[in-house]
This record gives sequence, C-alpha cells and structure tokens, in this order.
Amino acid sequence: MRIALDVMGTDYGPKELVLGAVMAVKEYNCDVVLVGDEEIIRKLLKEYKAEDNPHLSVQHASEVIGMREHPGIAVKTKKDASIVVATDLLRNKKCDALVSSGSTGAAVAAALFHLGRIRGVGRPAIATPIPSLTGTTVLLDSGAKVDAKPEHMLQSAIMGSVFAELMLDIKNPRVGLLNIGEEEIKGNEQALATYPLLKKEKQINFIGNVEGRDINKGTVDVVVCDGFVGNVVLKTAEGLATAILTMVKEAIMGGGLMAKFGGLLIRPALRGLKKKLNPDAYGGALLLGVRAPFFICHGSSKANAIKNAIGAAVDGVERNICNRIAENIAKQTKADKVVGSLK
Amino acid sequence: MRIALDVMGTDYGPKELVLGAVMAVKEYNCDVVLVGDEEIIRKLLKEYKAEDNPHLSVQHASEVIGMREHPGIAVKTKKDASIVVATDLLRNKKCDALVSSGSTGAAVAAALFHLGRIRGVGRPAIATPIPSLTGTTVLLDSGAKVDAKPEHMLQSAIMGSVFAELMLDIKNPRVGLLNIGEEEIKGNEQALATYPLLKKEKQINFIGNVEGRDINKGTVDVVVCDGFVGNVVLKTAEGLATAILTMVKEAIMGGGLMAKFGGLLIRPALRGLKKKLNPDAYGGALLLGVRAPFFICHGSSKANAIKNAIGAAVDGVERNICNRIAENIAKQTKADKVVGSLK
Repeated sequence: MRIALDVMGTDYGPKELVLGAVMAVKEYNCDVVLVGDEEIIRKLLKEYKAEDNPHLSVQHASEVIGMREHPGIAVKTKKDASIVVATDLLRNKKCDALVSSGSTGAAVAAALFHLGRIRGVGRPAIATPIPSLTGTTVLLDSGAKVDAKPEHMLQSAIMGSVFAELMLDIKNPRVGLLNIGEEEIKGNEQALATYPLLKKEKQINFIGNVEGRDINKGTVDVVVCDGFVGNVVLKTAEGLATAILTMVKEAIMGGGLMAKFGGLLIRPALRGLKKKLNPDAYGGALLLGVRAPFFICHGSSKANAIKNAIGAAVDGVERNICNRIAENIAKQTKADKVVGSLK
Repeated sequence: MRIALDVMGTDYGPKELVLGAVMAVKEYNCDVVLVGDEEIIRKLLKEYKAEDNPHLSVQHASEVIGMREHPGIAVKTKKDASIVVATDLLRNKKCDALVSSGSTGAAVAAALFHLGRIRGVGRPAIATPIPSLTGTTVLLDSGAKVDAKPEHMLQSAIMGSVFAELMLDIKNPRVGLLNIGEEEIKGNEQALATYPLLKKEKQINFIGNVEGRDINKGTVDVVVCDGFVGNVVLKTAEGLATAILTMVKEAIMGGGLMAKFGGLLIRPALRGLKKKLNPDAYGGALLLGVRAPFFICHGSSKANAIKNAIGAAVDGVERNICNRIAENIAKQTKADKVVGSLK
C-alpha cells in the first residue's frame, strides 16, 4: 500500500512531515511517496538517515499553494503544486490514500477538481474526531462546505456514521443534529429543514437534536452541522482548551509556594491529559465523499501527528471506507429516487 | 430605582432567586419587585427573615412559562405569566430594569411583544460576557435571532460596542466578525454580506474577521455573529470547560499518590480559576435593543448569580445604556437613509 504525503505549505516546513513519514514506514505496513521540493526532501531524508529506505520515495513538485491563496483558482492554475501532484497520484492509482497539512481549502479544492466525488455525493464533508469524556466524537462538516443544503447535511450524517463505525469501531453510532435546543421545532431554517431528512433516513441511528454542550459529553457519536458552524465550533474548542490550560498553569504559579509544589507533583498527570486533548493523537481529519481516503492535518502538525495520520490513512484503505460510503450513498440516493417516482 | 425579578420557571425553583434579591438589596442601592407566586415568595421571604424589608415587594403572577413551551404563543396566551407581568412593570414604568432566569425564548418574546424595541432596531440581540485571557469579551448575538440578516448583524456590532464601553469600561472596543478565516473573502453568505457593512460603519472600531480561537484570547472585545452560531459557540464553550476541569480532576485522582497530594495543594488556586470561569460572576446576558435593561440569566443560576445580575441591572440603569443604544442606532439609521436618498 502506498500513501502520498504532501510535505509542503505547512507552518513548520517539510522537516516535520518527512520525519513523520520516516517514523510511519517503521510502524505501519506501507510505503510513503513524499511530494514536494525534491532537493529539500532528499536533504532531510539524509539527515534522518533514511535516504536508502525502500519504503520511501520522492515525487518532485515545483510549486506550493499558500494559506492565503484562493483555493479554487490556485489548484486550477498551479498544475505543479504539491497538493495537485499528490492528488494526481491518487487519481492515477499510483497511491491509495493521501495526507496533507497544507491549506485546507486547497486540499478540498484539489480533491474536488483532481480526484472527484463518489457517485451520488453532493458535497464532501470534513470529519474531525474530537476527544469526549467517554471516548471520541466525530464532528462534521468542519469546514468543507459553508451554506450547506439539507441534502448535504443528510449525506454528512450517512458518511459520518460510516466513519464512526469503520474508523472508530463504534457500533450503531448515535447521530445528532447540532442545534440550539433539543426540541424538533428549534433551530434556523437549515436545521429545521434537515431534521425530518435525518429522522426518516433508515441507515442512521438518529437521536435528534444535540447542543454544543453535548459534543464533549460522550452522549452522541456523530455530530452533524454546516461547514461554517463546524469550523467555528472546532476553533472555539481549540482556543478554549489552550486558554483553560494556560489559566490552570497561571493559577498554580500565582498561588503561592504550596500551589507551586503541588503543580510540580501533578505535572505528569496533566501531561497525560494534554496528550489526550491534543488533536495530534488522531492525526487528522478525513475528507469524506471523495474517491480515495484524503486526510487533512492541522497546519501546525508535528512529526508524531503526521505519523498517526499516515496510520489512519492505512486503516482507511484497509477498511475500505470509500467503498462503504459509496454503497451507503447509493442506497440513499436510490431510495430518494423511488420516493420521487412514487410522488 | 426598582428592579423587577421574575422568580419563576428556573431549574432550582424560586428559592435561589428570592435569596439573590435579599442579598442584592443589602449590597446595591435599589428596590426589587419579586414577580411570581405570592404565597411561595412570602414564605421564602419569611424564611430569609426579610418579610419586612422595605426594599422588597411582591407582585403576584399566577402562571409560569415552561422551558418547553413555544415562546411566542405562550407570552401571548398566558397573560398572567410571571415573565409577562414582570415585563409589564417595565412598560408601565413601575420598574426600571428586569432580571429573569426562566426560558430565554419566553423572555425574548415577552420583551418584543410587551416592552418593544428601541426605535430603528430591527432585532434585539443577546450580549453575553465571557472570560478571556486578559479580561472579558462580549459575544453577541447568543441566541435572540437565528438566520439574522446582515443589517441585524451591523446593529449587533453597534449595540455590542455600547455594551462593552458602558458596562465593561472598555474604551474604543475592538469589534470582530466571527468567521472561518481572517481574509475578507472568507465565510458563508451571511458573513460575506456583513463584512462590508461593518467596515464602513464609523461608530465602531472594526478590526475585521476573527476566528473561534480568538474569542478567549483577549485580542477582540466584541465578537459579532448570528444567534444560531452564537448559541452553539456558547454552549460548546460551557460543555468543554466543564469537560476539561473534570478531566484535570480525573487525571490527578488517577495519577498516583504524589499526584493526589499535589491536587490537594493546588485546590485553592483551582477554586479561584473555577470562580473566574463561572458565568455567575457577571450574572447574566443582556438583551440589547429593547426599551429597558433586560437581563437573562442561566436557568441554573444560584443566588449569587442573581445578586450579580441585579447589580448589573442597576449599572445598566445608572449608565443609561438604552438611551445610548437609541442614540447610536438613530445615527446609523439616519446615515443609511441619507445614503439611500442619494442613490
């Protein structure tokens, strides 16, 4: 199995990504194709004493898409951008899955224009696993499509269910619609129109509306929302987690000698917690609805996160997630057509 | 000065609210009119040895609006509901401000139908103060109006600025539009249409788009968003803060003897932090855009939160917040009319 890794366009430069790949081929049964500036990559491979590793190869790409470029325009004009070249490896079946930690917008655009959607999928959705009090919750869409239509939200629910089942081993995952109240009559136009679609869809275990406070509680497995809302929620959670851990540290340091001593004693326990809350543990979010497993990592991912994302990509290929999504979407669109013809 | 306090329809029943009022009249220079079931209130006043306190009076209301009732229908049909009777005290100038911790929807509906908007205000917005790393950020709208129009978001920005300046003593508050990226071209239709309105409004100090992770950072004072997004964000933050503090506790308790001992030593410092993160510190959110200060507290508010909300209501009346909002909204609508007539 071969995983394409776009090593360019990230916050810390290619070194963390190349190191992540070196670590990954030791741990997982896969090859990694490093896509980006060949000279830089070969230098780094030498540095990590991996220039002769048969599981690592290099695919040169002369261009990079920056975080501030218009994604749609950039992937159409920069034919030799690393994310475009990496996506082409998927399309041409030279690789089985892709991992990127460059611009999310560019990754989504490259997947749409250069790889293509699974038949019947209206819009892909980004599924992000987040830690809860009892395990992991999947939030989607976390930013692929803003102003999503109710039909897109329904397909997010179906794809998110498959993700939770196959990738997180959750049986019959509980699906909730993110809303401002539990009652069916609550919500904006989008939520009000989505609720009945989720309610009648037989492929999912819909438990009704959920609220923001339920995301981390462990009472729901798949949280469905619009890409705008999902992105704001994720970034709010990220900022708040950092702020609270900073406040805990400040409270301890400002709390006198005893508190400082206590802080030293609890440090190992807190380090474990920090690890648990760290998005690096899972490695990346998965773009669902495109023709191959397409992982999008945080721009600030370190080597360990990249290694984990490659591991998740291997899982995605082995568990055949795209086929399962294709099957379930086919069932849904077929059922919708039957209903349509009966009208 | 007289504050109307709706003591019904809350999670813990009227006792926390009556106690909050008893505490408030000792601390602030105000009278409180307790609105609700007279028999229950008089019994509680006796219990708190406050039955003869000249600063406390009772206004009987025979009905209550529950959390699950349809707000609009309920405030129109239940003429003797506590929130309706309390709102009527404002309209008839028998009270200067109102505090409620019953159903938010019912409070907003009562304010709209029984008190009325400030001239020129399209829709009221709920402003919620939240703790940041450097002080306090105001998030609005946190739930009064979903599917807000760009004009509503502009007015939220103007009203939120007045709130930050008058109630939180922030000079020239920095206003940000909650979005999924910093660039002007980012966002859903609503955000894209709102950005230029905020950019050209001279009354506010617009600093551009902000992201979810900026809310708690202290780099923005007023965060403007739609009521759906604001509500989801607030509840997510609430749930996550609880989850993280639980995880910190579990990590310490599960971390061996040294960690447990350390946990004991840092307990006082963490208690201070919990207090800082507790929404009770400010007491409530303010419904901006209606004719009198109208405070909406969490349904689970304890006596201390109610006392603080009454204190904030006294502040709101003394600092004349509704007049200032009326002036600034008049400036904005007048400017818009001039622009309109020039077209």
